[in-house]
Amino acid sequence: MRGYRTLHRMLLLGLALGAGARAATAAELPPKPSVADIVKASQPGDWRPLDPDNTLYMESALGRVVIELAPRFAPNHIRNIKALVRAHYFDGLAIVRVQDNWVVQWGDPNEDNAKARKVEGAQKTLKAEFTVAAKDMPFTRLPDRDGYAPESGFSNGFPAGRDPKTGETWLAHCYGMVGVGRDSDADSGGGTSLYATIGPARHLDRNITVVGRVVSGMPQLAALPRGPAPMGFYDKPGMNVPITAIKVAADVPADGRSRFEVMRTDSAAFQAVLEAQRNRGGPWTKVAMNHVDLCAAPIPVREQK
Amino acid sequence: MRGYRTLHRMLLLGLALGAGARAATAAELPPKPSVADIVKASQPGDWRPLDPDNTLYMESALGRVVIELAPRFAPNHIRNIKALVRAHYFDGLAIVRVQDNWVVQWGDPNEDNAKARKVEGAQKTLKAEFTVAAKDMPFTRLPDRDGYAPESGFSNGFPAGRDPKTGETWLAHCYGMVGVGRDSDADSGGGTSLYATIGPARHLDRNITVVGRVVSGMPQLAALPRGPAPMGFYDKPGMNVPITAIKVAADVPADGRSRFEVMRTDSAAFQAVLEAQRNRGGPWTKVAMNHVDLCAAPIPVREQK
Repeated sequence: MRGYRTLHRMLLLGLALGAGARAATAAELPPKPSVADIVKASQPGDWRPLDPDNTLYMESALGRVVIELAPRFAPNHIRNIKALVRAHYFDGLAIVRVQDNWVVQWGDPNEDNAKARKVEGAQKTLKAEFTVAAKDMPFTRLPDRDGYAPESGFSNGFPAGRDPKTGETWLAHCYGMVGVGRDSDADSGGGTSLYATIGPARHLDRNITVVGRVVSGMPQLAALPRGPAPMGFYDKPGMNVPITAIKVAADVPADGRSRFEVMRTDSAAFQAVLEAQRNRGGPWTKVAMNHVDLCAAPIPVREQK
Repeated sequence: MRGYRTLHRMLLLGLALGAGARAATAAELPPKPSVADIVKASQPGDWRPLDPDNTLYMESALGRVVIELAPRFAPNHIRNIKALVRAHYFDGLAIVRVQDNWVVQWGDPNEDNAKARKVEGAQKTLKAEFTVAAKDMPFTRLPDRDGYAPESGFSNGFPAGRDPKTGETWLAHCYGMVGVGRDSDADSGGGTSLYATIGPARHLDRNITVVGRVVSGMPQLAALPRGPAPMGFYDKPGMNVPITAIKVAADVPADGRSRFEVMRTDSAAFQAVLEAQRNRGGPWTKVAMNHVDLCAAPIPVREQK
């Protein structure tokens, strides 16, 4: 596959056509380290492991999807979801909805499922946790303009918005963020139905309880067939993707756990990652943006083998 | 499927959990027409049919993907692509790359393919068409802030950026936009390798020649398996999705053409669509954003049966 290897030599974030190198006719931007370069040069202290008590594994025919929970943003929902998980609530339920450029949703395919009502120690609905007090919450602010929040940035590894006037902060609906499905009532969600975003969804910010993000498994979730029914629901039972089990990582024997690390968003390495995306270097890039959208700056994740 | 039908009753753009209606505890926003409501109430004059001379059909096992070309933004590349299409250049080539949250790419899987060099009337590379003069180009400006362009909006059905200082306008890399793969040289693309974006890609604006957008078929393209090789390339020939043919719609007999219409972006109906997304109404939405990102405001498309 000579063609592929040549393409591999190109900038990892560029769109290579692969006709070999030649002199650029446009003005050249100076080369700069790429995100891959920064990850490669990073130090162990730039990373943190996932906390097994706040990591979920969703097991299905897709393999394992790893979700990092954000208990400081939604403590009650996360307590409830862990209770549901430990009571095997999700085991045997399914991925029931994939709407293109919008969401993948899983959980209870039937609103009348009696299972949800009889889990010991868990509730079917909870008071909304759309925002939390910004005081005492870490926040690495992105300098760039954001239309959905007065301030945007990163809080301990999650994209977030912040409003200095109200003193609130909240998780932002970037790619792979996991939230709690609800009805029109703000307090009608509890965690029995969860979704991950696969398209622009920032207008959901402060409108829904967000509990974390998928740190591994988005390529599998996002490649699922879109559901043919309205809103992307799978309208025949055979279309659902059965969930073998959802588990709290801490309940899995150590040798069965995934070993992902997330780049610390308060590290100098992450500042370099942001800058590498705000202003990309040459030779591929001709115009540097001096800007990156919050959701166009993914937080690096790596797996320790 | 009682559960599904109940969900269907919910706001089409909301995330329904489906436990039936109940009084919201938070303050209610007044109900407003949704995008679906506006489309339903629109008049025939709010829509325009696709121009068969500037519409491509990509036929494969995925079905037909319909691409609307934007000849005012990239006249030379589009002339070249149509010459390649009419010489059957793409027929028998393949979708060769799907990188999660980034791009689907098709065309020549082998940079050394002799086919590209021997198409009569077409060139392998062309001078870049990254921007065009804004003078005389229609532009429906979005009032909201945009980090990637001094002004953003819509030009005859395509999302676009504009810079009043330089007098330039350009197509914006929103979901489903189709561009021309190139090497590091700005002038190294010609249309033998094309891509559609499936993730945030605005930093490509003004860095690559954009030729149009997919108006039908994104759910199929975006659900393709992600390629296992670096940059999402399919690294085994069996993974490629063969392209049966790409055709110019005008070359297809009238009864074999798709009949899509795009909402006119200079219409009052489209202004209402934008406003419906800038400030969503209740009862599902609790906080209206007074903002929509350029790429979070899709342009309505419908098929005339």
